[in-house]
Amino acid sequence: MLGLLRRQGPLSRGELGKRSGLSRTTLYDIIAELLTSGAIVTTGQESRPDAAPRGRGRPAETLALNPDAGQAIGIDFARRAVHVAAVNVAHEVVGSAGEPHAADLPWEDRVALAERLVGTLTEGALRLGPLSAIGVGVVGPVTGSGSHLETLPRLLRERFGVPVLVDNNTRLAALAESIWGAAAGEQDVLYLRLSHGVGGGLVVGGSLHRGAYGLSGEFGHITVESAKGRCDCGGTGCLETVASIRAVLDAYRAAGGQAGDVAALVAALESGDPVALGLLEDVGSRIGTVLAALCNAIGPGVIVVGGELTEAGAALIGPIERALSAHILPISRHRVTLRRATLGEAGGALGGIALVLHESPLLSRYPADEAGSVERHP
Amino acid sequence: MLGLLRRQGPLSRGELGKRSGLSRTTLYDIIAELLTSGAIVTTGQESRPDAAPRGRGRPAETLALNPDAGQAIGIDFARRAVHVAAVNVAHEVVGSAGEPHAADLPWEDRVALAERLVGTLTEGALRLGPLSAIGVGVVGPVTGSGSHLETLPRLLRERFGVPVLVDNNTRLAALAESIWGAAAGEQDVLYLRLSHGVGGGLVVGGSLHRGAYGLSGEFGHITVESAKGRCDCGGTGCLETVASIRAVLDAYRAAGGQAGDVAALVAALESGDPVALGLLEDVGSRIGTVLAALCNAIGPGVIVVGGELTEAGAALIGPIERALSAHILPISRHRVTLRRATLGEAGGALGGIALVLHESPLLSRYPADEAGSVERHP
Repeated sequence: MLGLLRRQGPLSRGELGKRSGLSRTTLYDIIAELLTSGAIVTTGQESRPDAAPRGRGRPAETLALNPDAGQAIGIDFARRAVHVAAVNVAHEVVGSAGEPHAADLPWEDRVALAERLVGTLTEGALRLGPLSAIGVGVVGPVTGSGSHLETLPRLLRERFGVPVLVDNNTRLAALAESIWGAAAGEQDVLYLRLSHGVGGGLVVGGSLHRGAYGLSGEFGHITVESAKGRCDCGGTGCLETVASIRAVLDAYRAAGGQAGDVAALVAALESGDPVALGLLEDVGSRIGTVLAALCNAIGPGVIVVGGELTEAGAALIGPIERALSAHILPISRHRVTLRRATLGEAGGALGGIALVLHESPLLSRYPADEAGSVERHP
Repeated sequence: MLGLLRRQGPLSRGELGKRSGLSRTTLYDIIAELLTSGAIVTTGQESRPDAAPRGRGRPAETLALNPDAGQAIGIDFARRAVHVAAVNVAHEVVGSAGEPHAADLPWEDRVALAERLVGTLTEGALRLGPLSAIGVGVVGPVTGSGSHLETLPRLLRERFGVPVLVDNNTRLAALAESIWGAAAGEQDVLYLRLSHGVGGGLVVGGSLHRGAYGLSGEFGHITVESAKGRCDCGGTGCLETVASIRAVLDAYRAAGGQAGDVAALVAALESGDPVALGLLEDVGSRIGTVLAALCNAIGPGVIVVGGELTEAGAALIGPIERALSAHILPISRHRVTLRRATLGEAGGALGGIALVLHESPLLSRYPADEAGSVERHP
């Protein structure tokens, strides 16, 4: 019941009955209990501006999670910045905020920064109750036991007093794009992020796909046959060695171009620099070939491409689309669409919220002091 | 309730209550209705040989689907053969059978052949009631509207009088391997079939993954950068152009070897022929590289490799494993295992049964005369 209200927002008793499949008697017993405990509240029809005009019958009273009990917060602890986002019990995104910091900032200070940013969003009105939770994005794999994977949930629980769910921030951005972003409403989404690293995530049937052992969406470490560079992962010829920001800028300089960052590269592209255009053609072609392989294997309905490198625009997206079209199974060619990400830097934090709302609907099963271990995804 | 009994086999009232989450009153009402309609029957404790020894309390009566109402049949209409398998209401595979036929055999005759084969399995005791269904595997994509995708379900419904579910037979083999075969009990499985064509299927979270538009598992049409051959799909450089039986035999002959079929190639490998060994090393290496890319993206727990080409044994599996290990993200290297398929030619038909049992638990929602269209999977 709580899961339904969390996922769907306010519902009438009739709608709850239909969606839960419970008998009227059982349903009304449960509702009475939840009202008594304060977990849910009744809301009048006037609180739903989108409701149908009042007919001749009695206006339908709706039930909702208690706003004092159920806000959700998403926090993305990126390499050099903290981003936060908050949603109210009606699933409305209250807003998002972010602030850069030094790469070596201790975790205690990052958590304090997150708390301050959350405060600016909620104007001090944050009330995290028994149905609240925090969804957290972190850099890198969340399988195994990196020290920050133990420290961080503990610090956040101490600070906020609610369960903490953790996942990789790029995967969370994939989930967020499938809910609020470029692929809103899509059930099967492949998200590729081209940034300082190259990674991504898969949404399968509307849920974040994690794989059997928590490592999936590692598109940056797919071998590109013609690439020979060493990768930070220990492998050779990974897509990341040709499609990360550093790899692209290095290749541009090696070809005689001059660009210290993505903005300078974009300027060169806009001025029609043939070296920059040729380079992006090559990089995009390799990316598109990998995407085609993944489409043949997985069959997403939408591909979302994000990350700073997409600021290159059509000079990158065009070659990606051409290679995708050339290498995808011909029968699939016009069935998958490629879109640029729309959520930008807030994607990871929004994905943290999505993790809470969509992946853990019966959050109340997990007491706050256990959630860090019970629910640390994967 | 029917879905639970279909998926779990016989359960006590207490277990049904726990798993359904229904109140005792609601549960008992539903059970009474289902008993009256004949959809389920009570079974004594003595019918469960694995039950706990009789304690001091009253022996727990279990409930099960009515065996007269719920057999399931799987039929694989392969290119030149029909395979069938049957399961009783207790989810026990009664057996499987198959028979080759000419490639141009009309669908009417294939269906008649299937019926005869089913008869040999069930010894005339087949009773397909309102909870029964047939799961059918066919060659090629089941998206769109190929003529046999309309003819076949109609013919089968006319013949057997129950709903018909259709899916690609290679994908069904993937599902079957994850239930009864090499990856039994695994939730995330990648199945690759190396036969006259190269294809496969993905099991994600225990369910067959179909993708947004019904095309997934098309591993044979992933571009292998170093391959240049034209593929039947209209593309160039597909894995199928280097790893299908025909491609391997053609390459063997082009390199001076002599083998008319897989058995002859296997004999050459067993005699230590360096040309055959070198060729399989190369083919296996390309296959393993593709599998590594898919593991990085999807993260399966087990890879199952099937199809006639696997009769080459270690000469093929060894190079696949080495390339997989070389190109998979190092952190994933020891987390995925590669196994040879165990179900052989019965895989597609068994997968048809799995489709009925696992993918359509509430089959009774679909009247027999609509199921062909309602339930024709993609």
